[in-house]
Amino acid sequence: MTGEAKSSVGRFFEDFAVGEVIHHATPRTITHGDVSLYTALTGSRFALPSGDTFARAVGYPRSPVDDLLVFHVVFGRTVADISRNAILNLGYAGCRFLKAVYPGDTLTAISEIIGLKESTNGRSGVVYVRSQGVDQEGERVLDYVRWVLIRKSEEGSPAPDPLVPDVPSAIAPDALGDAVPEIDAGEWDWRLSGSPSRHGDYVVGERIDHVDGMTIEEAEHQMAARLYQNSAKLHFNQITEVNGRYGRRVVYGGHVISVARALSFNGLQNAFQIAAINRGRHVMPVFAGDTIHAWSEVLDTASLPGREDVGALRLRLVATKDRPCYDFPYAEPDGSYDPSVVLDLDYWAVLPR
Amino acid sequence: MTGEAKSSVGRFFEDFAVGEVIHHATPRTITHGDVSLYTALTGSRFALPSGDTFARAVGYPRSPVDDLLVFHVVFGRTVADISRNAILNLGYAGCRFLKAVYPGDTLTAISEIIGLKESTNGRSGVVYVRSQGVDQEGERVLDYVRWVLIRKSEEGSPAPDPLVPDVPSAIAPDALGDAVPEIDAGEWDWRLSGSPSRHGDYVVGERIDHVDGMTIEEAEHQMAARLYQNSAKLHFNQITEVNGRYGRRVVYGGHVISVARALSFNGLQNAFQIAAINRGRHVMPVFAGDTIHAWSEVLDTASLPGREDVGALRLRLVATKDRPCYDFPYAEPDGSYDPSVVLDLDYWAVLPR
Amino acid sequence: MTGEAKSSVGRFFEDFAVGEVIHHATPRTITHGDVSLYTALTGSRFALPSGDTFARAVGYPRSPVDDLLVFHVVFGRTVADISRNAILNLGYAGCRFLKAVYPGDTLTAISEIIGLKESTNGRSGVVYVRSQGVDQEGERVLDYVRWVLIRKSEEGSPAPDPLVPDVPSAIAPDALGDAVPEIDAGEWDWRLSGSPSRHGDYVVGERIDHVDGMTIEEAEHQMAARLYQNSAKLHFNQITEVNGRYGRRVVYGGHVISVARALSFNGLQNAFQIAAINRGRHVMPVFAGDTIHAWSEVLDTASLPGREDVGALRLRLVATKDRPCYDFPYAEPDGSYDPSVVLDLDYWAVLPR
Repeated sequence: MTGEAKSSVGRFFEDFAVGEVIHHATPRTITHGDVSLYTALTGSRFALPSGDTFARAVGYPRSPVDDLLVFHVVFGRTVADISRNAILNLGYAGCRFLKAVYPGDTLTAISEIIGLKESTNGRSGVVYVRSQGVDQEGERVLDYVRWVLIRKSEEGSPAPDPLVPDVPSAIAPDALGDAVPEIDAGEWDWRLSGSPSRHGDYVVGERIDHVDGMTIEEAEHQMAARLYQNSAKLHFNQITEVNGRYGRRVVYGGHVISVARALSFNGLQNAFQIAAINRGRHVMPVFAGDTIHAWSEVLDTASLPGREDVGALRLRLVATKDRPCYDFPYAEPDGSYDPSVVLDLDYWAVLPR
Repeated sequence: MTGEAKSSVGRFFEDFAVGEVIHHATPRTITHGDVSLYTALTGSRFALPSGDTFARAVGYPRSPVDDLLVFHVVFGRTVADISRNAILNLGYAGCRFLKAVYPGDTLTAISEIIGLKESTNGRSGVVYVRSQGVDQEGERVLDYVRWVLIRKSEEGSPAPDPLVPDVPSAIAPDALGDAVPEIDAGEWDWRLSGSPSRHGDYVVGERIDHVDGMTIEEAEHQMAARLYQNSAKLHFNQITEVNGRYGRRVVYGGHVISVARALSFNGLQNAFQIAAINRGRHVMPVFAGDTIHAWSEVLDTASLPGREDVGALRLRLVATKDRPCYDFPYAEPDGSYDPSVVLDLDYWAVLPR
Repeated sequence: MTGEAKSSVGRFFEDFAVGEVIHHATPRTITHGDVSLYTALTGSRFALPSGDTFARAVGYPRSPVDDLLVFHVVFGRTVADISRNAILNLGYAGCRFLKAVYPGDTLTAISEIIGLKESTNGRSGVVYVRSQGVDQEGERVLDYVRWVLIRKSEEGSPAPDPLVPDVPSAIAPDALGDAVPEIDAGEWDWRLSGSPSRHGDYVVGERIDHVDGMTIEEAEHQMAARLYQNSAKLHFNQITEVNGRYGRRVVYGGHVISVARALSFNGLQNAFQIAAINRGRHVMPVFAGDTIHAWSEVLDTASLPGREDVGALRLRLVATKDRPCYDFPYAEPDGSYDPSVVLDLDYWAVLPR
């Protein structure tokens, strides 16, 4: 007897059906330990999740957990059921942060399969999945869609009816801000936050070089992915990956987002919350030894309905590898990405007005 | 004056005497920070130590600390007095987890020398030691025996009378479960735990490939050993180890146990507690860059006296390096270990019935 | 529009003026997570910050945060404003620990520019800065002076009037001990602390080899510096550093201090607090792969005014790279440093009497 029924090699494309709802394993209590590790792995310096006193002064009960740490913990739960056999994480969209999370909160994740489309080569297919993070009170803290290219277990197996779900290209401003309590912007200490630039100081079209770079080590991205209990094998297993697509372990894309976001502190110091991710794309894989730089462009600016305390900026966050961003590398003349670009993230940030 | 009396090069074989009791230094309060690091270093996904809500639902006051984290912290305390000059950690036996440990508890360690046997070459000897972990209330949380090969300081020094203690080959089922409160198995959420397989679903002789592999980095095993305040020099000092037995730093064997145990989640999702380690052997050293895979075999199944809530499985956990375990590598035809095997651990796990 | 006003390349020598006061960004709540990471990154084994029960027995409310973790967190806050363009951190002096810090406390940092001196080559200058760490009650926890060599942005720019501040060569004993509550030395458990050697057992001139060595990995020093939110680019950016002075990333000097201090446990087990740093100098940069050893010399011994519970030792802590310290490497016959020496730290430690 071999126990094949007890351990799992993960799902293949054929194993998904539209409409299926999956309750993912391993509830996770997020603690101060997770917060410290997130700081140590990313170098984030935003004031709100760093200092309880800062958070209290503006109206939070204490420092909330960094939005991206919440994202990664929820995402991590989904991997064993969704993307263990992923070839590529193709994109994210429609991601909203719905409720502030604090150390001590316990998160679980639920996903629904909302679309399937076999690749033309018949060897893989795209799975569209909507995932939600839920806290210990049963309230949603996060909601997002991702689509991911998954291997088929057998090349000749029949294709499902293709269904590509409608995903909004951007979250509307009136759907932002649920996770941000009414803040007392008068108590926002612009010295402690690192910059006097408030919402109104940013203009559409403005581009910001975040200057710094961060080299990623193998131990770092592995610790990050394991912290999130993300079990995607391509991050961890050198002896399988050496024969894989890239010949080596691949950095969890979410770690790249977090490093880029941490770098963006230098220029977006007061962008204290990620209210929504409109679209995200890992343009190129990142490997240990790569150095990440980042720049941002202000795509739009918006009020939040009924709120005088904060406003939103729609930002494009571009990360590169092994190339500084003082000249804002993005697209080639033919419309393709500059070869240094690894991340193209379109998100809404919230800033004090 | 050189302060030789103040710092220590560690004990050699001649420095041990049967019957000696050692109170080890540095009490350690285990915190949420330790728990997060343990997750980040091992990737463990068991529900009970991960989510307070899960733990509370079944009857724990909150998530207990992972058993192996408790083991490593107690073990770590003993190293400076016992095994700084260890050539090899030969084995563990008779290890029982006696009381659940929670973040905030403070552990100390006490050891007694229970046996000594000089090697035939006269250059080293085996020290048998029984160690106990004690919490802030003076109650034992852990009790185990290990034996370790220690250098002599002088080759010609006289051998002690050999005494090889009687160590049980296995813990009897009626000595298991002290650290597991009566749980409400009806509240065990089999979706959140990751599998519907309960105690009765495993049968003797069943073998489970845990599928995944984990490559260990130098920074990771060093951080793990330091987290446990394990000061064995062979884990940390490249310039002495380059002239040592292996020419490089050696991964703390306990880190290999933890990685293998974390991998075993895929197939033993509900094996929520390690009640006892019957025997453990580090068959081969592990180095940075090695990739660990693991498989398990069910050796026995048992009831716990008077308990309807949980049962025990006796398991053999085998870890390999640089070799997947789909064909369960273990012994060669001549009885020697398969050359890929690094760990052979015989333990009792507790599962809901 | 390029957002140059929003992100910063850091200050150059010309950007500093004597008398300027800077309130640094990002208040930081120090948590158990930070404490665990500090242990995992340094291997520190001192009893007081490790075990709450030990701390309570002698009169602390619980384990205080390691003094050097406090130092690094305060220092980290100052980097973005002071030393992003540092060529070299030249030294520390007049550093006093003024109040015990506990997990949950939130620290901010304030600096005053107290001196400026252009280099003779006209391409850089030394900035003297006094920095203070302040807790959530507005009380000072740390006060120190450092001087750092900073690039000029333009070679020909005019030199400021040189002002080299008076920095005491050592803190007087009557200014020590503010952060140490009256302890009940009778409750000091000399077994749990790791050694029976109390204040009076050390004599001036005594030298102690700390025996052990610790190899530093790239991921470790990066995690340490990021944990402290230290954003000095030379620690993190391989693609800029490859063209920099050393061709590679440089380990944050504070991490070297912490590793050396952790090693010094073996010989100074009861030196439970760093009361003051008289002078500190990073003699040579340290890189990933280097192995740190350390030794100490007792420079002086002192009573603290009105205190029978504790006394102070003035210690020289010397760290080397890739060379054990059994023969106490320090100076060459010509007075220059032994080429292995990386750190020369003169500090006051507090021990029970």
